Amino acid sequence: MNTIANAANFNGAKPTIDVNDAAMLLVDHQSGLFQVVEDIDVPRLRRNVVALAKAATLAKIPVITTASVPQGPNGPLIPEIHQSAPHAKYVARRGEINAFDNPDFVAAVEATGKKTLIIAGTITSVCLAFPSISAVTAGYRVFSVVDASGTVSKMASDLTIARLAQAGAVPIDTGATLSELQGSWNRPDAAQWAEVYAEAWPHYRLLIESYTKAQQVAINHEELDSLRR
Amino acid sequence: MNTIANAANFNGAKPTIDVNDAAMLLVDHQSGLFQVVEDIDVPRLRRNVVALAKAATLAKIPVITTASVPQGPNGPLIPEIHQSAPHAKYVARRGEINAFDNPDFVAAVEATGKKTLIIAGTITSVCLAFPSISAVTAGYRVFSVVDASGTVSKMASDLTIARLAQAGAVPIDTGATLSELQGSWNRPDAAQWAEVYAEAWPHYRLLIESYTKAQQVAINHEELDSLRR
Amino acid sequence: MNTIANAANFNGAKPTIDVNDAAMLLVDHQSGLFQVVEDIDVPRLRRNVVALAKAATLAKIPVITTASVPQGPNGPLIPEIHQSAPHAKYVARRGEINAFDNPDFVAAVEATGKKTLIIAGTITSVCLAFPSISAVTAGYRVFSVVDASGTVSKMASDLTIARLAQAGAVPIDTGATLSELQGSWNRPDAAQWAEVYAEAWPHYRLLIESYTKAQQVAINHEELDSLRR
Amino acid sequence: MNTIANAANFNGAKPTIDVNDAAMLLVDHQSGLFQVVEDIDVPRLRRNVVALAKAATLAKIPVITTASVPQGPNGPLIPEIHQSAPHAKYVARRGEINAFDNPDFVAAVEATGKKTLIIAGTITSVCLAFPSISAVTAGYRVFSVVDASGTVSKMASDLTIARLAQAGAVPIDTGATLSELQGSWNRPDAAQWAEVYAEAWPHYRLLIESYTKAQQVAINHEELDSLRR
Amino acid sequence: MNTIANAANFNGAKPTIDVNDAAMLLVDHQSGLFQVVEDIDVPRLRRNVVALAKAATLAKIPVITTASVPQGPNGPLIPEIHQSAPHAKYVARRGEINAFDNPDFVAAVEATGKKTLIIAGTITSVCLAFPSISAVTAGYRVFSVVDASGTVSKMASDLTIARLAQAGAVPIDTGATLSELQGSWNRPDAAQWAEVYAEAWPHYRLLIESYTKAQQVAINHEELDSLRR
Amino acid sequence: MNTIANAANFNGAKPTIDVNDAAMLLVDHQSGLFQVVEDIDVPRLRRNVVALAKAATLAKIPVITTASVPQGPNGPLIPEIHQSAPHAKYVARRGEINAFDNPDFVAAVEATGKKTLIIAGTITSVCLAFPSISAVTAGYRVFSVVDASGTVSKMASDLTIARLAQAGAVPIDTGATLSELQGSWNRPDAAQWAEVYAEAWPHYRLLIESYTKAQQVAINHEELDSLRR
Amino acid sequence: MNTIANAANFNGAKPTIDVNDAAMLLVDHQSGLFQVVEDIDVPRLRRNVVALAKAATLAKIPVITTASVPQGPNGPLIPEIHQSAPHAKYVARRGEINAFDNPDFVAAVEATGKKTLIIAGTITSVCLAFPSISAVTAGYRVFSVVDASGTVSKMASDLTIARLAQAGAVPIDTGATLSELQGSWNRPDAAQWAEVYAEAWPHYRLLIESYTKAQQVAINHEELDSLRR
Amino acid sequence: MNTIANAANFNGAKPTIDVNDAAMLLVDHQSGLFQVVEDIDVPRLRRNVVALAKAATLAKIPVITTASVPQGPNGPLIPEIHQSAPHAKYVARRGEINAFDNPDFVAAVEATGKKTLIIAGTITSVCLAFPSISAVTAGYRVFSVVDASGTVSKMASDLTIARLAQAGAVPIDTGATLSELQGSWNRPDAAQWAEVYAEAWPHYRLLIESYTKAQQVAINHEELDSLRR
Repeated sequence: MNTIANAANFNGAKPTIDVNDAAMLLVDHQSGLFQVVEDIDVPRLRRNVVALAKAATLAKIPVITTASVPQGPNGPLIPEIHQSAPHAKYVARRGEINAFDNPDFVAAVEATGKKTLIIAGTITSVCLAFPSISAVTAGYRVFSVVDASGTVSKMASDLTIARLAQAGAVPIDTGATLSELQGSWNRPDAAQWAEVYAEAWPHYRLLIESYTKAQQVAINHEELDSLRR
Repeated sequence: MNTIANAANFNGAKPTIDVNDAAMLLVDHQSGLFQVVEDIDVPRLRRNVVALAKAATLAKIPVITTASVPQGPNGPLIPEIHQSAPHAKYVARRGEINAFDNPDFVAAVEATGKKTLIIAGTITSVCLAFPSISAVTAGYRVFSVVDASGTVSKMASDLTIARLAQAGAVPIDTGATLSELQGSWNRPDAAQWAEVYAEAWPHYRLLIESYTKAQQVAINHEELDSLRR
Repeated sequence: MNTIANAANFNGAKPTIDVNDAAMLLVDHQSGLFQVVEDIDVPRLRRNVVALAKAATLAKIPVITTASVPQGPNGPLIPEIHQSAPHAKYVARRGEINAFDNPDFVAAVEATGKKTLIIAGTITSVCLAFPSISAVTAGYRVFSVVDASGTVSKMASDLTIARLAQAGAVPIDTGATLSELQGSWNRPDAAQWAEVYAEAWPHYRLLIESYTKAQQVAINHEELDSLRR
Repeated sequence: MNTIANAANFNGAKPTIDVNDAAMLLVDHQSGLFQVVEDIDVPRLRRNVVALAKAATLAKIPVITTASVPQGPNGPLIPEIHQSAPHAKYVARRGEINAFDNPDFVAAVEATGKKTLIIAGTITSVCLAFPSISAVTAGYRVFSVVDASGTVSKMASDLTIARLAQAGAVPIDTGATLSELQGSWNRPDAAQWAEVYAEAWPHYRLLIESYTKAQQVAINHEELDSLRR
Repeated sequence: MNTIANAANFNGAKPTIDVNDAAMLLVDHQSGLFQVVEDIDVPRLRRNVVALAKAATLAKIPVITTASVPQGPNGPLIPEIHQSAPHAKYVARRGEINAFDNPDFVAAVEATGKKTLIIAGTITSVCLAFPSISAVTAGYRVFSVVDASGTVSKMASDLTIARLAQAGAVPIDTGATLSELQGSWNRPDAAQWAEVYAEAWPHYRLLIESYTKAQQVAINHEELDSLRR
Repeated sequence: MNTIANAANFNGAKPTIDVNDAAMLLVDHQSGLFQVVEDIDVPRLRRNVVALAKAATLAKIPVITTASVPQGPNGPLIPEIHQSAPHAKYVARRGEINAFDNPDFVAAVEATGKKTLIIAGTITSVCLAFPSISAVTAGYRVFSVVDASGTVSKMASDLTIARLAQAGAVPIDTGATLSELQGSWNRPDAAQWAEVYAEAWPHYRLLIESYTKAQQVAINHEELDSLRR
Repeated sequence: MNTIANAANFNGAKPTIDVNDAAMLLVDHQSGLFQVVEDIDVPRLRRNVVALAKAATLAKIPVITTASVPQGPNGPLIPEIHQSAPHAKYVARRGEINAFDNPDFVAAVEATGKKTLIIAGTITSVCLAFPSISAVTAGYRVFSVVDASGTVSKMASDLTIARLAQAGAVPIDTGATLSELQGSWNRPDAAQWAEVYAEAWPHYRLLIESYTKAQQVAINHEELDSLRR
Repeated sequence: MNTIANAANFNGAKPTIDVNDAAMLLVDHQSGLFQVVEDIDVPRLRRNVVALAKAATLAKIPVITTASVPQGPNGPLIPEIHQSAPHAKYVARRGEINAFDNPDFVAAVEATGKKTLIIAGTITSVCLAFPSISAVTAGYRVFSVVDASGTVSKMASDLTIARLAQAGAVPIDTGATLSELQGSWNRPDAAQWAEVYAEAWPHYRLLIESYTKAQQVAINHEELDSLRR
C-alpha cells in the first residue's frame, strides 16, 4: 500500500504492545531531577511511574531501573518504584547520560529476551529520549511513555514527542500503556488493575468510591439524610 | 513522487471522508469515564459527540456504539447519543478494553460494508486509539475524532494525536468531520445541518440568533429602543 | 466590635440572601453581547443564567429582565431565560446603559417590594456593575452574580469584583446563589433543584447519571459485562 | 448604616464617574515601556488607551498626558493618543517617577477644575498606582483604569488592584469607563460611540459588520449563495 | 488609629490562629462533589484536606466533619479524613446546605468551647462560605481554608475569596494554616510536622528525600557513580 | 537517501515558497465565522490576514478570495482584505464547504498558472484544511498558514496541523510566510515590508517607534528630561 | 470623610513608602524552599529579591535577612542577597516559623529605628504573611512584596493578598517598591537604578541594549547591513 | 523494514548528535527581536542560548553567529553569546532573511568541515527554520533547537516544529542538546558541565545549592537552628 508505518521495527505488524514480548525500563526517576520538571505536575508524574511499576508486576513483565549519579544533586531514585515492582532490577551506571551507553544496562535489557521496550525517564528529552532512540536503532519496538517522564517545559516535551515519533519510537501515555498491558477487564485480577488506574487517575478513584457507596445504599436500603425528619 | 501520504489505506486517493463509504463508531462515551477527562471541557465533549450522532443521522451513515462495563464505575452510555442517532446499534462487550478485540463489535463493523471509519471514544488514548490502530491494521481508512473524545491531560491527548498519525489514522476534529459529511450548504436539509453546528459550536448558535433578529428588525422596520422618545 | 461589614445595607445582619425578600434582575443577556465575552466560556454563561432563572421559578421570586437596544448589533435576549422563568417581566429601555437609569426599570424593581436584589448582567463591568452600584446607593442589599455575567477579559472581571466589593455589593457565584435560594435538600421539590444544579454544573449531571445506574445495577442484580463468559 | 463605602472622597455619593466633573490623565504610555508589559496583550492595551482618548474627545472632558524620560529607553508616547484626543495637553516631567510629584503636572490637573480623575498608566503598579494614590490623598475621586495600563506580570496587576482598592481609588476597566462617560445610546453621536467600542472590543466590531450585512441582505432581498443553481 | 481590621471578631487582636482556642470544621469533602471541582487539582485538594486533618491531630485541636446527603450522588466522605484524624466527630445533617443551619452541627461546634474556627469545605462558595459567614455572624473568629476546598471554576473561587473577606472571615491557604498551628520547628514532634508538609507539598517531600540522601552520601563517604572506573 | 520529504509535490526540491510560482488563497475570513474562533486572538487573526494580503501586494503574487454564504450568519468577508490587496479576485461559491469543490474557484486558481499555493482560511480545520488537502492531491505545493486561520479550540488546530502535515501540506505561520515572500531586507521597498511586520507583530511596531525616537534623540542631541534642572 | 484607609498605621497619611523611614526584611529566601514555589517563575523570584537588595543598597536603607532552619531540607539562603546588599544583617532563628516570634529578629528590626517595613519572604502565605501581620499589629506601616516571595500555588498567593490587605498591610509588587524607593530619575546614580530595573525586568534590559545600539548607530553613522552592496 | 527514519541525511544511522562532527549556528539572537517573542519566557530564551554557547566551548565545537540588520530596530546581538563562546565567529549578512542565502555564512559553515549542524535562531519560524530547511536540502544532518529560539506565539512554534520535522530536521530542546554534547558525567570537566545546566535550568542550580549545603552540614556536624536552646 501507499502508506508508511512510521513506528520502527514493527514490520507491518500492528504497532501495539505485546505483553508477552515486553520489558519496562524506568530511567532516572530521581528526587532531585523531579524538582526540575515543569511540564507535568510532579504528583501526577509520581503516580504515573508507580502505576507503570504496579502494572508491570501484575502483567509479570521485567522491569529494569537505573539512576543518574544518585549520590549527587540528582538525588535518589524515588522509593515507591521498587516498592511497587519488587522484582525490578536496578542497574548502576558510571555517569553515562544515555542509559543505553552503559554496557551493564544494555546487557540487562538483552537478558530479558524481549523485543518490545516500554520506556519512561526523567528528564524526558534526555533520559527518556536517548534510550528510546538508541533502542530503536538497536532493533527494538519502543514505546516511550512521555507522561511518566518529565522535563523543564511544555515546549521541551512537545519537541521530544516530535523527535521520538520521527525516530520511530511510539509516543504513548501512561493510561494507554496500562490498558495495553491489561487488555481486558475479564480477568481474575481485575480489581487489582482497577487499583492501578485509581493510582494513576485520581478521578477514577473518586468514581470507585462513589459507585461503591451508591451500591451499598441500594443494597442496604439506606435512607437519604434529606428524607429524615 | 518523492513524497508519502502517511494516511493509511488511501492508496493515493485524497485522504478525506467518503460519506458513501463511511460508518461511525462511538466508543465508551460513559458518564463515569467523562469524570476522568481533563483535556477538554466535558460540555464541549458532550456537544461534539451529540453533533457527530446527529450528523450521522442526517448523512444516513451507520453508527455503532459500545460501552466498557457500563454496570461498573465507568457508568452508563450518555443517553443523548442514541437519542440523536435512533438508528445506532449498541454492541455489548465482555470486558475487552479495545473494542476491536470483541468479535461481536468487529462483526457489526464489517456488517456495515463500509471501508471508512469515523471513530470517537473516551478515554482518547485508549478507547479511541486502540480501535483506530486496529482498524488501520485491518485495512480501513480511519478518521479519529479526538475532540469528541477525552482523556486525563493535554499531554495524553497530544501523545495520542502523534501516535494516531504515526499509525496512519487521520487525526481530525468534530467540525471537520461534520463538514466532510455535509459537503455543501446547497441542500434541502441545510437548516438541520445548521442546527448540528449550533449544537457543536455555541458561538455559531449566537450567530444564528443575532442574524435572525437583525433580519427581522429590517423586515419589520423595528425601531431601535435608543431612538424612542 | 472593631470590625466592619463591608456588604452594604445589611445593618449587622448576616450578609446572605433572604429568599423571602429577594428579586432577580437579569440584565442584557444578549446573543450579540455574548460574542464579546472572553472571561467565561459562553456555554457556562448560558447555563448559569438559565440555572438562575429556573431557581427563581422554583423559589417563587420575581424576575425582571431587560436588554440593551436588542434591535441593534447587541442582538436579542437569549430565549431560554423567559423559557426558564415564564413569570419573568421584560422591561424595555430607551438606550440607557445603566438599567437603573431607566425609570420603568426602577419602577418594576420597586414594584416587587423586595429589598434584596440578585443581579446578573452582560457585560459584567457595565451591565452588572452599574445597576449593582446604583441599587446599593438606593439602599438595596445587592448580590452580584459575576459568573452569570460576562466581560471582555479576566482582568476586567477581576476589576469588577474588586469594584463591586468596594461599593458594598456582595460578589457571588451562581452556585452559591442557587444554594442560598434553595436552603435545604429536605423539601418536596428536591429533584427539581437537582436538575437546576445539573444545568449549571455538567459534572453534577454526570454524578446523577452514574449514581442512578449504579443503584439500578444493585437493585436489578445486573451482571458486569466483564464477568460474562 | 453599618456599612462603609471604601471608595475615597465620595462622601456617601454613588461611586461612579460624573462626566461633568471628570478629567482624564494618561500617564507614560510609551513604546519602550510597552515592551515590558506581560499582564495584558499589548494590542489590547493600545486599543484600550485609544478608546479612552476617543471617549474623552466625545465626552468633551480634559485629557492630560505625560511621559517618563521619553528621550531614553522608555521610548516615545505612542502617537495615537494625541491623534485620538487632539485637545489633550502634554506635560513634560523632570524624571519624577510619580507624575503627581511634578508641580507642572499637578498644576495642569488643578487647572481642569475637576474633582474626578480617570487615570491610566504604564507601568500599572507605578505609573498608574502612584498618581492614583497621590490624587486620593489630595482629595480627588479617582478611577484607575487598570486594563488601559500594563505591568510585568499578572501577579503585579493583581497586587495593584488590591493596593488601589485599599487606598480608596476605584479599580475599573476600560469598558466600564467608556460606558460611564457615555451614559446612553440615546444620543445623536451614538454611532461615534459605537466606533469607540469597536476600537476597544474587536468582537464588537465583528458584531457591527455582521449586523450591517444581515440588514442589507434583508433590505436588498439578497439571495443566499447556497440557494443559487 | 485611622485604620480598620476587617477580620471580624478579633477586637484589635492580631488576626491569626490561636492554636489553644481553635477547632476545625471539615465540611462536605465527598467523592461525588470532588468530581465537580475545577478550580484546584483534585489530588492537591485531597492532600490539603488530609494535611489539615493530620495537623489537627498533632495540634490536638477538635475536628468536626459532616457530609451533604452522602447517600446520594454527592457520594461518601473521603475516607482519609477520619483515618488522619481518628478523634474527629462526624455530624449527620438533614439536608441543610449550610451546615450551620443544622442544630446538631452547631451544638457540636459550641461543645468544643472554642472561639476560633478553621473551616474547609467543598463546594467552596457554598459548603465553605455558608458556614464561614454564619460563624462570623455568630461571633467566631473564622479562618476559611480555600485551597482545602474546591468549586466549579477559578472565577467562583475568586468570588468566594472576595465575599469571605468582605464578610470578615480570614481567607487563608492550607500551608499558612499548618504553620499557624505548628508555630515552631523547635519541638519534639518536628519530624511528624515535616511529614504533614510533605503530604501537602509534594515538592517538599522531594526536598526531604534529596536532603536525606545527600547527608547519607557525606556520612558514608559514598563515591559518585560518575567517578567509578 | 534513507529519508522522506513528507511535504508533497516538491520532488526533492527545498520545501519553501517560490515567490515566482506562488498564489495566495484566502478562504472564508468572515465576520460571523470569526466569532466562533477560540484558538487565536481575533485581532491577531485579523492582523495576520491583513499582513498576508499586504505582502501579496508587495510581492506581486495573485490573491483569490472567497466566502461561505456571506449572506447568512457566517457574515461578510472582512473588508480589510480587499483594501490591503486591491488586485485580489473574489470568487463566489454555491454553498460548497470545500472551496476546491467549486469549479469557478478551481478555474481561478488554475488561471494563475502557479504551482505553489499559500492558503489561509477560517474555520481552520475546514476552510483551510479542505482546500489544502484537495490542492495537494491536485499536485500543488501547498503552504497552509494556520495562524491566519482560526478554529473553535486549540485542540482542533493541533489536530489540523497534524492532519495537514500527514497529507503533505506544509504547516506554516504568517511570519514565516511573510519572510519567504520577502526574502531580503536589501530591497528598495524594505520600509513597506517593515510596515507589514508591524501590522502582523505589534511588538515590532513598538521596536520601530522606539528605534526611530532613539535615533532622533541622538541626531538632535535631545536632552533627557531627567537631566533638566 | 466617609472613607476608610485600610492600610494600617498611616493615620491619614498617604499610604506610600517613606524611603527615610524604611527598613527591608528579607525572610527565608532559601534554595530548598524555592523548589516548592509554583505561583511565580523561580528565576523571576530570584531576580526580584536581588533587585530589592540592590535597591536597598542604593537607597541606603537597612536590610535584615533570616532563614528557616537552613541546615535542613529548606536549604541555604540564596547567596546573591548578601552579595547584592553587603550591609545586610543576618539573624538566625531557633525554629520559629514566624520570624517575628524570634526575639533577636524583633530586636534587630527595632534597632533600625524605622517605622515602615518592606517585607518579602518565601513561602508567601507563611514567611511573608506572618511577619507582615505581626508587624502591623506592632504598629509598623507594612509593605508586603508578594512577587519577591513565592508559594505553592496561585490560589495560595491570591489568598495571601486578600489576607494581607484585610490585615492592613499594603500588598505591593517589586517594581512599585523599587520606584517608591527611587522616586526620580533625576539623580546622579540614575544609571545604577536602571541596572536594578534591568535585573528585575529582563525586557527592560532589552530596551537598554536596543536603545544604546540605536544611539551608537546614529552617532557613528553606521550603515545598515541591508544597504551594503 | 516497513518503517522510515524521517530525520534527513542520517542514512540509517542513529539520529543523534555526533559531537565530533558538529558545528553550532546561532542566528539572529538580537535584543530587539527578543521583544517580539511570546512563545517562551525571554529569560529562559537567553539562558538557553548562553547554555548552548557555553556547551559549545566545553565540547570544543565551532560556533558561527550572525545578526539580521543589527543597526536597525532588530537591535544588537545579545552580548553574552560571544562572552560565553569566545571562539565564536560572527558573520555579517547583507539583509538576507535566510542566513543560508548569504554566501559568506554558507562559506563559514562549510569551512567548519562538519556535517551535523545544531541551529538556534530568533524568530523561530524564520531565523531557525529557514537555515534548518536549507541545510537539510544541502545534505547536513540538522538539529533545530526550538527552545533556544523564540517566536510570536505558541501556535507559530507548534507550526515550526511540525514543519521542521516534515522537512527532515530533528526538532530538539536545549537540554537534550547539552546532554548529547556532554555524553557523560564521567569526565574531568563535569563541574563545568554542571554549571551549564545550572545556567539553563534554574531549578538545577537550586539542587546544587541545597545539595552542597546538606553535605557541608553533615561534614561539619552543623546543629539545626531548631535544636538550639
